[in-house]
Amino acid sequence: MSFEQMWADLAPVGRSARSGGYFRQPFTSAEIELRAWFAEQAEARGLAVEADDFGNLVAWWRPAGVTGPGLLTGSHLDSVLDGGAYDGPLGVVCGLAAVDLLRERGVVPTRPLGVAVFAEEEGSRFGLACLGSRLAAGAISWEQAKQLKDRDGVSVADAMAAADLLGSSEPRPWSAQQRPAAYLELHVEQGRHLVDLGHAVGVGAGIWPHGRYRFEFTGEANHAGTTRMEDRRDPMLTYAVASLAANKQARLAGQRATFGRIQVEPNGTNAVPSQVTAWLDARCETKDTLDQLIRVIERQATERAERDGTSVSLTVESVSGRIDFDPGLATSLAGGHEDGDWPIIPTQAGHDAGILAEAGIPTAMLFVRNPTGVSHSPDEHAETADCLVGVTALADSLERMLS
Amino acid sequence: MSFEQMWADLAPVGRSARSGGYFRQPFTSAEIELRAWFAEQAEARGLAVEADDFGNLVAWWRPAGVTGPGLLTGSHLDSVLDGGAYDGPLGVVCGLAAVDLLRERGVVPTRPLGVAVFAEEEGSRFGLACLGSRLAAGAISWEQAKQLKDRDGVSVADAMAAADLLGSSEPRPWSAQQRPAAYLELHVEQGRHLVDLGHAVGVGAGIWPHGRYRFEFTGEANHAGTTRMEDRRDPMLTYAVASLAANKQARLAGQRATFGRIQVEPNGTNAVPSQVTAWLDARCETKDTLDQLIRVIERQATERAERDGTSVSLTVESVSGRIDFDPGLATSLAGGHEDGDWPIIPTQAGHDAGILAEAGIPTAMLFVRNPTGVSHSPDEHAETADCLVGVTALADSLERMLS
Repeated sequence: MSFEQMWADLAPVGRSARSGGYFRQPFTSAEIELRAWFAEQAEARGLAVEADDFGNLVAWWRPAGVTGPGLLTGSHLDSVLDGGAYDGPLGVVCGLAAVDLLRERGVVPTRPLGVAVFAEEEGSRFGLACLGSRLAAGAISWEQAKQLKDRDGVSVADAMAAADLLGSSEPRPWSAQQRPAAYLELHVEQGRHLVDLGHAVGVGAGIWPHGRYRFEFTGEANHAGTTRMEDRRDPMLTYAVASLAANKQARLAGQRATFGRIQVEPNGTNAVPSQVTAWLDARCETKDTLDQLIRVIERQATERAERDGTSVSLTVESVSGRIDFDPGLATSLAGGHEDGDWPIIPTQAGHDAGILAEAGIPTAMLFVRNPTGVSHSPDEHAETADCLVGVTALADSLERMLS
Repeated sequence: MSFEQMWADLAPVGRSARSGGYFRQPFTSAEIELRAWFAEQAEARGLAVEADDFGNLVAWWRPAGVTGPGLLTGSHLDSVLDGGAYDGPLGVVCGLAAVDLLRERGVVPTRPLGVAVFAEEEGSRFGLACLGSRLAAGAISWEQAKQLKDRDGVSVADAMAAADLLGSSEPRPWSAQQRPAAYLELHVEQGRHLVDLGHAVGVGAGIWPHGRYRFEFTGEANHAGTTRMEDRRDPMLTYAVASLAANKQARLAGQRATFGRIQVEPNGTNAVPSQVTAWLDARCETKDTLDQLIRVIERQATERAERDGTSVSLTVESVSGRIDFDPGLATSLAGGHEDGDWPIIPTQAGHDAGILAEAGIPTAMLFVRNPTGVSHSPDEHAETADCLVGVTALADSLERMLS
């Protein structure tokens, strides 16, 4: 089945008729349908599908007599809430298409070659991105992860059990045998480096440091009609100033700072809020500049809080340091092509590739051009011609890594 | 049963152990318990409890041979989400205590005297304030109101039916016989006029014009990590500027403007929002200044939207004009007291008294001092001594209105 046919297969699964975006949260019916589709595709190619203890799948191509740790490619099939079609599935579908292309070329891998589907990469359901790869690589324990709950209070453990993805014994990270020898993830670009550089594909350099911070702005609930403006302690105002400060600071320094999630108490039209909780997503080129950015935002919020009679409390929910992919591998994949070297570009997004790189596995990423740079949105896009260049680039790269 | 005993009875009903605030939404278990309590209190006093077709209750004192349209006092027992103890219940409990006091004085009313409990005064469940009094007075039709839904999608009709408050025939507004001859509502003050003036009670002059407006700020969902700040169309920023503008404009002009409710799509930590919907509550001394305030806020939001690449759409959800209570009645209640005249003060909050005044019923309000002015909050308060002054003032006023 060709790339185009596979892509058409996936198009309707978990798609919202209203927005055209995707709701493929892990262990829901849409995501379970995607897993079944993947197993069918693997079977049609004679690949052996294996699941680890955390719902991550690998379709293995193991020619007779070929054993030992494998070379892994792939990505994920889950989406953010109302996300795009490409973030995740493009890497899986290109992985399957690259296996087809390698076979057409008569390549017989000298070690096992697997196409992986990682679970809950987006963290859109349980709040922790790359959950499947973190668990498999031992970066987080099952003890910690199983208690994570979705917005309806369902735990990871219960959701996995309901989807029949939990075995009878205590789940364990990858064994030495399961752990891949190397990992290469293809992904749609989520920015516009490749557009600006005029290339259909590029190689990843590394991932910017990334933090998630919870700001609690506390004031005093009050009547929206009778309370004079000067008698209020309205945390919405402090939040508004913080969100504008975050945007301005990041814009001036070429960094990223986003307040995209907010929760208001009591959230009534006729009530001055008692509390506004807002989550800041921030990413900078280095850990130092990230820390500095957060300090400036916190200071500006605190200054305004004094004027508003409110208080600000900051909780660091998670911070990941800078990740550099294997530089030798990146250089060797990028060079020596007939049509010139592929550019080596940074990314500001987390990926399973980052988790595997941190676990000491030689890792690289390929990116496919995104005409607008838009991602995590129904408007996310890549031209089919560029996706097909991606399939060839992935097959070429896997061939190099096998040799 | 004394005021203090009745107040202690009500204290635990619908109270949140976490915040100390009240959750007494209409037709929920807490509010049904309050209705049962009210019926018991009426019965203990030999008052006849009658319900109209919309769940509003009146406990009638009808001495033998006394008929015709009655004089009504009372208020409501429902609360905002996480509200205070006084807003509503104070008027009901003082009404019952005033009946006791009038009886102690040997007063025999020359027309029926009723203590009313109006349903869904706050609009905290179905979004329309004074729902019960509007329906009873014919200010809104049952056809329109029965379809209103709460946040869980339950309609007014279904909620009332579940609470056994809906009869078998089509609900109808008050008949000429049911319509009160006059209405006097006692309420905790929700501002600080009485504190500033040094009085325990005051008389209401009227209610400011009040509007609710829905702002939809639309941008483009995007990845919070990879999308450069300058490539975004982030509606959160436009909202932030609008909320600060609303506050500033209202503060400078002694008006009220509050963004207390907000809904963000998709509301994910790692996503630039596609849409922010925010509700503005605004109140000014006149309809003209209210219209002018909204125009200024809309203009400032629209100017910022141009910079953010977003759009702003404004929907007027409801606007009520200025309400003046019966001026002759207010003056006659305020004057001629041993300890000096009671002040006549404005209010910026809607009340059932406003609905009845608009329906042409001679109406007045009494306010009891609130030490901090805080309302719609667990911190809402009135001193017991002031509440008891309120009981006496209410009994005095009812006696005047009966003669």
